[in-house]
Amino acid sequence: MAYRVRFVPDNAEVLVPEGTDLLRAATLAGLQIKSSCGGDGVCGRCAVSIREGRVDEGNASIPEKLRKRGLVLACRARVMGDTVVFVPEESKVATHHVLTGDAEHARLLTEKETEGAGRYAFSPLGKKVSVSLDEPTLTENAADLARLTARLKKGGLDEVETPLSTLRRLPRVLRECSFRADVYAARTGHGYSIVDVRPGHKETSALGLAVDIGTTTCVVHLVDLSSGITLERRGSYNRQARYGDDVISRIIHASEGGEKLAELQQAVIGTINDLTAEALSETGRSKDDVIAVVMAGNTTMSHLALAVPPDFIRLEPYIPAATHFGVVRAREIGLVAHPEAVVHTVPSVASYVGGDIVSGVLASDLAHSDEVALFIDIGTNGEMVLGNRDWMVACACSAGPCFEGGGISCGMRATPGAIQRVRVDADGEVYVSTVGGERPSGVCGSGLVDCLSSLRRAGVIDRSGQFQTDAGFPRMRQTPDGWEYVLVWGRDSRNGEDIAITEDDVKNLLRAKGAVYAGIRSLLRAVDLPMEAVERIYIAGGFGSYLNVQDAVAIGLIPDVSPEKYVFLGNSSIKGARMCLLSEEALAEADELARKITYLELSVGNTFMEEFVSAMFIPHTDLSLFPSVEGAKEGIR
Amino acid sequence: MAYRVRFVPDNAEVLVPEGTDLLRAATLAGLQIKSSCGGDGVCGRCAVSIREGRVDEGNASIPEKLRKRGLVLACRARVMGDTVVFVPEESKVATHHVLTGDAEHARLLTEKETEGAGRYAFSPLGKKVSVSLDEPTLTENAADLARLTARLKKGGLDEVETPLSTLRRLPRVLRECSFRADVYAARTGHGYSIVDVRPGHKETSALGLAVDIGTTTCVVHLVDLSSGITLERRGSYNRQARYGDDVISRIIHASEGGEKLAELQQAVIGTINDLTAEALSETGRSKDDVIAVVMAGNTTMSHLALAVPPDFIRLEPYIPAATHFGVVRAREIGLVAHPEAVVHTVPSVASYVGGDIVSGVLASDLAHSDEVALFIDIGTNGEMVLGNRDWMVACACSAGPCFEGGGISCGMRATPGAIQRVRVDADGEVYVSTVGGERPSGVCGSGLVDCLSSLRRAGVIDRSGQFQTDAGFPRMRQTPDGWEYVLVWGRDSRNGEDIAITEDDVKNLLRAKGAVYAGIRSLLRAVDLPMEAVERIYIAGGFGSYLNVQDAVAIGLIPDVSPEKYVFLGNSSIKGARMCLLSEEALAEADELARKITYLELSVGNTFMEEFVSAMFIPHTDLSLFPSVEGAKEGIR
Repeated sequence: MAYRVRFVPDNAEVLVPEGTDLLRAATLAGLQIKSSCGGDGVCGRCAVSIREGRVDEGNASIPEKLRKRGLVLACRARVMGDTVVFVPEESKVATHHVLTGDAEHARLLTEKETEGAGRYAFSPLGKKVSVSLDEPTLTENAADLARLTARLKKGGLDEVETPLSTLRRLPRVLRECSFRADVYAARTGHGYSIVDVRPGHKETSALGLAVDIGTTTCVVHLVDLSSGITLERRGSYNRQARYGDDVISRIIHASEGGEKLAELQQAVIGTINDLTAEALSETGRSKDDVIAVVMAGNTTMSHLALAVPPDFIRLEPYIPAATHFGVVRAREIGLVAHPEAVVHTVPSVASYVGGDIVSGVLASDLAHSDEVALFIDIGTNGEMVLGNRDWMVACACSAGPCFEGGGISCGMRATPGAIQRVRVDADGEVYVSTVGGERPSGVCGSGLVDCLSSLRRAGVIDRSGQFQTDAGFPRMRQTPDGWEYVLVWGRDSRNGEDIAITEDDVKNLLRAKGAVYAGIRSLLRAVDLPMEAVERIYIAGGFGSYLNVQDAVAIGLIPDVSPEKYVFLGNSSIKGARMCLLSEEALAEADELARKITYLELSVGNTFMEEFVSAMFIPHTDLSLFPSVEGAKEGIR
Repeated sequence: MAYRVRFVPDNAEVLVPEGTDLLRAATLAGLQIKSSCGGDGVCGRCAVSIREGRVDEGNASIPEKLRKRGLVLACRARVMGDTVVFVPEESKVATHHVLTGDAEHARLLTEKETEGAGRYAFSPLGKKVSVSLDEPTLTENAADLARLTARLKKGGLDEVETPLSTLRRLPRVLRECSFRADVYAARTGHGYSIVDVRPGHKETSALGLAVDIGTTTCVVHLVDLSSGITLERRGSYNRQARYGDDVISRIIHASEGGEKLAELQQAVIGTINDLTAEALSETGRSKDDVIAVVMAGNTTMSHLALAVPPDFIRLEPYIPAATHFGVVRAREIGLVAHPEAVVHTVPSVASYVGGDIVSGVLASDLAHSDEVALFIDIGTNGEMVLGNRDWMVACACSAGPCFEGGGISCGMRATPGAIQRVRVDADGEVYVSTVGGERPSGVCGSGLVDCLSSLRRAGVIDRSGQFQTDAGFPRMRQTPDGWEYVLVWGRDSRNGEDIAITEDDVKNLLRAKGAVYAGIRSLLRAVDLPMEAVERIYIAGGFGSYLNVQDAVAIGLIPDVSPEKYVFLGNSSIKGARMCLLSEEALAEADELARKITYLELSVGNTFMEEFVSAMFIPHTDLSLFPSVEGAKEGIR
């Protein structure tokens, strides 16, 4: 008997046999829960609470203070039915927040094992076909390749092409196995390519890689193409970071000539390769088993991964070399995979609306619904797509690096010690929680949104972001550079120094959130629809996943609509990439989407600038847009 | 005013302006006529005779003995109308007889310039397209590649793919030339590939290579793909010869493992590359201008050129790795050409009926005619195809190396000094002529056929090849190894030694000619047709081109049919390859032909062996098959 276990607030879900302990279930769901004692029921760090369903709590002695809060030990509690488990922030292992697509989670083998392709038919880009050919005779003397392709055609693999490297091995392999062979074929633009032929019939399934190439982080999913099961998820920082935090600095470096472009390519391919190698090592599989790859990244990242010069992406009129890159072979770009593995790149819409967005839209329901929806991915750039099954329009606005912790005096990435939640009470006292529960080192994007919202609510700043210097807040102080507000005193911080937010920080945040909101409004104006027409808002990406909607609405970053309209997609770029890997249909739709989405260039016309100016207030100059926001009714305080 | 000049017996033809001298016309036709004085009308070595038409003989003093024979000096005689010119063997420069496709000849620019594609529509595999794109703006901001492919699509180039190397250069090239570029696109299996993009609009046309990969010789045609004109023809010996004279010894070497296969590949690719480099140098063109290549060779040669193991071609049941090889890029096999040049290999029918034969059939009219025709290519193997537009059946028989001068004590290739014509008078006196008119060194294939025929006619040998030792021929003598007949005494030979043909030589020749004729008969028996049903016989290849039909019929090598039925194709392998290069339609037909031709395996059943035994006599045991042969009526002498 197997039961479904859902972990909230992460919404990681897994199907496990009865009696599985929650620690193991969480791991299977892609969630790391602390467990210093190794699951012996001793350390008490794996405490969770049961929201729904039934577990056997075992006979562990749970500390009194945990019991009072209604908590149980995940390592002891055994699943006895479908269960919803709440995992407190402090019980989570958070080395860093690279979203590896947790919300999809490894599954045990079930009838739903092919869910990775989402709504699309399961038709993976690579497959293993075990063939038994009649041995040739003097009268049945077709060539080896003709014999093989005729058999594959019968099996539905039409338009088969064979790289020289495979053809060169074919005669010996076929005779080595008395013409019982395993064929590893991958989908190209036109049909199938025989990536490998091996003596058969072995158990070795074909593997695929879904890759999300983010400017900041890269994520790799190692997928079994026969079952659709994700075997491993790995994520880490993009090693290109040493060449600059944002795409512009990467482009500038790449444009300097010589080996610079190659350096950037090697940095990102090296990042992906390390993740792939780890995943392969963990599963005991060979790189030669990987025969199909789908990469999704923003337009610049796609260029850099393929070493295609991105130079003109940053220069008006912002033209990429390509949006649809065609297929390449793993060997051409140095990927750890079978040398002839077929590599697809999810196509882009334009220079600043890339394959990651197309992939994200694919992973959402936007292109299949009659209702109008908005897709938002907030990072250094804010990218957004508005539309439904009939039409889609997209734009990108430069939000700056604030939400990734850049350009803010106390900003940092969402690594351990980053403040991710901030509350300021009416007296101006500050409460924070950090990633990993460690001593605070700075504030990450979601913490900054909380912070801005809280400071406004407490009256520390006014709607234009001005510090209310005469209100007597004990944590507000003047420095030679202007006013600042201390969030954490040195005695509580990791390095002993105060952590404070300055007037300039607030201005930068207002510009960033103003740009995002102005982008949304510009899209709506372009199609002449009111905000109310939007039935659903998808929030994608790393920053979005840790965002507190109420605070984000309160500062005017995202629209003030009913909270039920918000859907968090997590890392939708990797999800879409995986859908493409597992479904030719999804890949074809990605291609179609990239052509279908109309790109709105915000630097043309005055709409965006007007909207931007209006959106630089908290929450906005037009308060009617934010009816639910407390204080919006109060006017400027 | 331009006139057509045809040179016989080579059948080289050219269209030249009125007043062109015949020496120049011959060069244009690809024929080298001797001219020691440099065309000054002094040396008299360029003597030719006018068979038809009109020339102005000029005022040169032609030597009396030439005038008596009705000869004129080619360097003085100027074309005044359509002309047929006979070039005596002694007037030809014959460095070696590699058939570079002379019968097609360079043409002056005329309306017929695209004749190289023969009956097929002129649609070359590569083309240059000069495009002027609108420069991108903020509102017309399609990616460079999208902008380019949309324009190409308008121009009829659909399904365009772009290799990474081209895409990587695209952005800079387009901006360097203000979006006026020259696109070099080549046909792949599925559409077009953008091999190169260059700042435009330049005069540089796209070039292609047609390559004939023979076991003995390689021939390269450098073709201008815009006009269809062949700019250069080059031929030389296949450097693989050091690994053995025939395909079997090459296969054995290749099968030895390690780098042996690579050695053989490099030898043949090196041969081709030297020819290509010479042709490019002669025309002042760059290798990067070569964007499409069509190679035609026998099945083993095709394997070796691509470094695909040919091992199982020589082992029963004689299975090649492939007959249809797909397209590869020049860089993959190291060809001198643009690295991304698309390389097509004319497909094979089976292990011993290769792309050279398919190419040859394409160059003949066989597959387009209602009448039944026979195509014969005699080399180490005798390959033949029988059929018409509705059906075709092919076979191969091992003729042995005799006709290429191998396995014969006095045999040699058709290089200068090789005896190519032999006459034996009733007294047994011998008259010979040699390639290049030089002192004789040995006898080449066509000379051996003449020799066998003459010896039989003179009564030196009987129908079974037995030397008539009691007939008192002064040139017949006994040696420790048996009887032999001296063709050239040492005083007249190059190295001072007698040149003689032995009993064993005659036996080998009988086996070789018997195999060819038995193959022809086996094909006819397979389809149950009499010899009379064959309306046309195409003779292809180097040996065939210098063959004296009467002698070949007299020894029973080829069928005794009306001489008008014989058509000499010359190097039909290179002709067919060039047709494919100049016509997608021809390439598609080659593909179709290779699938359509039914391969008859002669080692199955007894037919071939029965025929072989019957064909080991001169001309045959069944004299009714050779009604025209003198002596056939006489019975065994």
